[in-house]
This record gives sequence, structure tokens and C-alpha cells, in this order.
Amino acid sequence: MIPLDDARDRILAALRPVAAETVALAEGWGRVLARPVVARLTQPPADVSAMDGYAVRAAEAVAGASLAVIGAAPAGHPFAGRVGPGEAVRIFTGGIVPAGADGILLQEDAEAAAGRVTVREAVRPGGWIRPQGLDFTAGAVLLPAGRQLTARDIGLAAAANHPWLAVHRRPVIGILATGDEIALPGEPIPAGGIVSSNAHALAALIRAGGGQPMVLPIAGDDRGAIAAGAAVRGCDLLVTTGGASVGEHDLIQAALGEEGFALDFWKIAMRPGKPLIWGRLGAVPVLGMPGNPVAALVCGVQFLLPALAVMSGLPAAPPPTTTVRAGAALAANDRRFDHLRATLHRDSAGRQVATPFPQQDSSMLANLARAQALILRPVLAPALPEGAEVPAILLGEHGI
Amino acid sequence: MIPLDDARDRILAALRPVAAETVALAEGWGRVLARPVVARLTQPPADVSAMDGYAVRAAEAVAGASLAVIGAAPAGHPFAGRVGPGEAVRIFTGGIVPAGADGILLQEDAEAAAGRVTVREAVRPGGWIRPQGLDFTAGAVLLPAGRQLTARDIGLAAAANHPWLAVHRRPVIGILATGDEIALPGEPIPAGGIVSSNAHALAALIRAGGGQPMVLPIAGDDRGAIAAGAAVRGCDLLVTTGGASVGEHDLIQAALGEEGFALDFWKIAMRPGKPLIWGRLGAVPVLGMPGNPVAALVCGVQFLLPALAVMSGLPAAPPPTTTVRAGAALAANDRRFDHLRATLHRDSAGRQVATPFPQQDSSMLANLARAQALILRPVLAPALPEGAEVPAILLGEHGI
Repeated sequence: MIPLDDARDRILAALRPVAAETVALAEGWGRVLARPVVARLTQPPADVSAMDGYAVRAAEAVAGASLAVIGAAPAGHPFAGRVGPGEAVRIFTGGIVPAGADGILLQEDAEAAAGRVTVREAVRPGGWIRPQGLDFTAGAVLLPAGRQLTARDIGLAAAANHPWLAVHRRPVIGILATGDEIALPGEPIPAGGIVSSNAHALAALIRAGGGQPMVLPIAGDDRGAIAAGAAVRGCDLLVTTGGASVGEHDLIQAALGEEGFALDFWKIAMRPGKPLIWGRLGAVPVLGMPGNPVAALVCGVQFLLPALAVMSGLPAAPPPTTTVRAGAALAANDRRFDHLRATLHRDSAGRQVATPFPQQDSSMLANLARAQALILRPVLAPALPEGAEVPAILLGEHGI
Repeated sequence: MIPLDDARDRILAALRPVAAETVALAEGWGRVLARPVVARLTQPPADVSAMDGYAVRAAEAVAGASLAVIGAAPAGHPFAGRVGPGEAVRIFTGGIVPAGADGILLQEDAEAAAGRVTVREAVRPGGWIRPQGLDFTAGAVLLPAGRQLTARDIGLAAAANHPWLAVHRRPVIGILATGDEIALPGEPIPAGGIVSSNAHALAALIRAGGGQPMVLPIAGDDRGAIAAGAAVRGCDLLVTTGGASVGEHDLIQAALGEEGFALDFWKIAMRPGKPLIWGRLGAVPVLGMPGNPVAALVCGVQFLLPALAVMSGLPAAPPPTTTVRAGAALAANDRRFDHLRATLHRDSAGRQVATPFPQQDSSMLANLARAQALILRPVLAPALPEGAEVPAILLGEHGI
């Protein structure tokens, strides 16, 4: 058995970002940039007005002055002439400040009548003008490679005149569920069998992590079927679920071994989730997950989401944790890193409290769905009283 | 000018969840249930083994006892017979406990040889058996209507034998950018013009909020063009951007007014974002956003995301805020609710500190993209020293 953190490190060290693809700007949200976004123009392109009003020569725009309005400069319709002495040009937010003018008289500080405008508040030089390049200048790196694009980033890339973006493509993750006892939802259930939940739960987790799931047909508990299923082309990582335990019916390793599977490790000191296979089948990394649905989900959070991040071009990192208070006394932990399914509430001081379910059986999917956090109990963690600070992975964030 | 919270309340009170659609289980992630998910079966369907070992009669499985192994019960292959006195059945995790047996002898506590097994650790009645219905029973409501589905929920719905789910469809949000001065990225830019960023930034925000954006062709500053653009069919809400200010070129209200637009309000005591139109054009709610890109994004966070939540079937609520410490002294606020763009870091005590950018100009998209939080400054908030606790909306969460 190897420690959980070592297992994650070994998995992440073996992975590389997938290649780039070109996507339309509108499809770029949430994707990770493979190339930086460099400004293709200067913004604003010239000095522009920050407000609606009049472009004036600040030195003469003192209270009481009367100026002749010689034209207008709405956004998108620059005034071609020049503002001379005693003159003003009507201007609107975003309009280019005409030559000769060096300040904006706000319209609420002006009185307009019969082609003239009277100044009620003096204008300071540069007042209400956004200088050329205030936002960014052509050639500036606005968004670096490796950045996961927010809605704001999409706006910035648009403003910098990028109709296309180079992003890492979504990693394609094959999912092979195995077992004679499982059936897809809505299909006939074999005698003594159950409905398969892992494949579609993991597919949703992969979507949440920015990947593209490829759910393969279920393989029965048979070496040939498993080997045929695992020989899939076109995925960047293959996840198997089921058959990773120690019983006679745990065939994954046997089946893949005949195909040249190179095993790295397969037992992790964690609960739930001890039997986890990690290796490589030809060029394809293989993550063999337990069949227990709770164990599979916990392994998904601890290993698959960080793996997806690395394959998507993001840094290698463990799942983010938050410090919460234990809502019940916690027993001392043994040599397996434990994940207690827990609900969350806030105490009277506004602090987050995570209370573990009394039953932590790793077959209980309904409890898992109700859980809002996994309380992390490291190897040999001492017993803790109710109220102690403990690390937790908050579920529900990002749809997990 | 009406207060920000009142404006949001009026917007949300006018909206209803969109209708339901049927989607495949695999497409249900992140969607909001329109009908509850009720268990269609009992899980586990019978008493099953929690471990690999031997199904035995606990009373006779005392240390040293030797039992005849009369068959096997792997998961999916129930043993049809009965465990009689002096007998045991080989069993694997998930296998149905055969009639007659009432406990599991773990394989690490057993010694098997020549068709018999010797007990090394006594078995307690019910030991390592998951009773029928431990996870859930047929007819139980597992996921209520109104729940936004996590990856774990997808697994639970699968286990409960649901190949399809009834969810609210994604609200379709039309986006009409207006202005003579704007061009789409990569297209010819008019003299004195800029590249349009609002439509695609808002489209990404809408995706982040679970909606389906419909970006309409840009309408010039012309009543006919705006009216024609706004007459779009098939959207649940229309967002306009640009032209919501008070200048002569602010044509949205004029253009929509001719089409029978029923205005509710159009000025909010907030910064950035004061000019916000809210009303209804026929059956379609219309949210008229400012043209300023920062103002449009802030209005998107304060109004459009909560609107999307309500339309998607989630509760009406303001955006979630977090208490952070001010990274700089904050000036007293005026009568407009302010949103200071800020970066985040953690202080030596691990507390989040938000430091506002020195320049808060609402045209600065590059600053907005770099921002990690909006510090909220309510109307007439007093001056605060550096280190004071302030509410903030954390950006970057959920890709915003």
C-alpha cells in the first residue's frame, strides 16, 4: 500500500497536457489557453470621452463662458474638424476627443441653447478623458498560456480582436465498467444484479473537470471481454471500474496483463478506495477504480479531477481543501487515509461545521449524494473532540 | 434611481422557471430537476456481502470450525441452494447472501483447502452483510424537484434505474449589442470604433449560469435596426447592451417603446451600472445593460446570474458573498452601491484579503479580467481602515 499523496504525485507526474485546438471565441469559456492572448490593438484606440457632454479647450471653459457648438462626436462617428478658440463639440461616452479639445464639460454642468453651450462648472485639463491605451496597448500579453478562461477573459479577448483561441482540447476519458452483475439504467437487470451507476457518475465528474467522457459498453467478468473493451482507440486516459479488488473475480489486471499492461501500483492506503490500479496499456494511461460507487467517486475526486487538470494544461495540484469544524467527535484513524462523508452547516459564529454521517458504508450512494463535504482523516490522525478544526473537501462546488 | 436589492427583487419576482424537457441521464449533470427522482428499485436488492469471504451460519462459525464449501456466490451469480449445518458458500463483494447463511467469514480470517474452509476468527450474526435496502428502498424520493444535479446525483439516479431525467430546459437568452461604433472580433472596425466585447462576455456568463446564449447580429444606433433586432423569437429573456445611458444616442428605450415596450425601471443606484433598463416587450422580459463592459459584467453578476437561476428552477437569491479583509483603506461611499474590482491574497493568518485596484474606471477590461473579487460598498457605507471586514463577491468561482 502506498500513501495517497504519493499515488497522486505518481499519477500526475506521468501525465502531459493534451494538444491544442482552435476554437471560436464563443466556445472558449472554461477552456485552458494553449497560447497567450496578445492585444491586436490599443484600447481605447485614441483619447475618448468618459461621459456625455462637450469636448472643450479646458483653459477657456471657466464658469460662465459661452462656447459655439460646431459639431458632434458620438461613439463611432468621430468629428473630423478641430475645436478652435471659443468652440465646443457635442460628445458622447466613447466618442473620440476631437483635435484641439483637452477636456470634457459634463452635460449636467452645461446649459445648451441655440447652437451654443454655457459652462456652469469649470473643466480641468484632461477631465473625463480616457487616454489612448488606458485599458491595454497593442502587443501586450493580456492572458497567458495556461489560464482557464472566465467570462471576463472572453470579453477581454474579444476586445483585443481575437475571433479564435488556441486552447487545449478536452481530454477524452474512456470509461469501462466491468462486472457480470451490472446493467445500464432501464435495461433488463440480471438475476442478483444491480444497475450500473459508476460509469455515468464518473462521466459527469469528467464533464465537471472539463473532460470529454467516452462511456464504453459494459464488459462482463471475462478476460476477453475486458481486454477487448480496454483496446479502445482515441482516448487520452482509460478509467476502468469494478474488478480492482482482491477476489477471484478481479480480472482487470489479469485481462490487461495479457495485452501488455505495465502496472505502476495498485493498492493505496486510503478508505474508501484501497484497490486502485495505475499503469499504462501501450500509450494509454489506465486508472483502474474500485467497483464500489462511493470509493469510485472518492477516487475520482482525489485522482481523476487532478489528472484532468494536468491533461487540460493546468498545474498539478491536490483537490482544494477548506478548514472546517468537526460536528462530532472523531475516532483516531488507522493506517488508511479516510474520507468521512459529512453534511455542512454554519454555527452561530458563522463557521462551517461538517458532521459525518453515522454510517460510512462505501456502498451507500444516497448518503454520498446528500453529503456536502468529505472530512479528511490522514493516516494515524489522532482522535479529535467535537469542534476541532479538520481539513475537508467541499463537494457540490463545481457540480461534483 | 432605485436601490440595487430592490431592482434585483423586482427582476426576480417577474420571472418564472422555464418548462421541463426530458434528457438522457448522461446529459443531466448541472441541470435542475423538474420532477423528483424516485427509487425504482431497492438497493441492495437483497442481503449482500460487503466483503470477499464465505457465507456461513454464524452460530457454528467459531474459531477452529471446519465447513464444507458447497458452492460460490459471486456478484451477479447468486447461489441457488441453501447453506445447511456444517456448510459454507464462497462469496464475493456484492454477492447475494444465500439462504441459510447469516454472516460472512472474511477470507483473511479463513483457511481454505480441498473443498473445506477453516474458521480462524469467529463470525458475528449479520457480520459483513449489507441488508436489503441499506442504501434506498423502492418508492423513496432520492432527489427532489429543484435540485441542481451533481456528479454524485447522476450516479444515484442511475442506481435508482433512471435512464431519463425531467429537467428544466436551459433558458435561452437573446443578446442584442447595439452601437454604430462596435464590430465583431476579426471584422473590419469602423473609423473611431472598437471591437464588441459585451455580447461574447455575456454569452460566456450565461453559459456559466446554465443558460443558452443566442448572440444576435449587432444593431446600429438606429431605431429601426434595434426594433428589428429586439423582435427576436424563441428567447426567454432578451438582454440588450449599449444605449442604456442618458445621451441623445441612447435609443433602446425609444426604439423598444415604439414596439410596445412596458418599462418597469431604468436607473439603479449602483456603480458601475447605473443605467439598467428592465421591462417587457410582449411576453419577453428585457434587461437593458449599459454599454460599458465592466458595468455590463457587474450587472451580469448582480442581475443576470440570479435571473438565470430563477428561470432554471432554482430559488431567487442574490449572488453569494464572502467576508474578506480590505487590503487598503476604503473611502466613504456615496448614494450608489459600489463594486470595487480587487485582487485576493491570504494574509499570514490565512485570511482572505481583497485589495482594490487604484483605478476603478469602468472601461478597463484588462483590470476586470485580473480582478478576483468585487468588494461591495453599500450605499453610504462609512470609510473603513485597511484590514476591516467587508463583503465581497468572489469572481473566478464557476468561471465568472
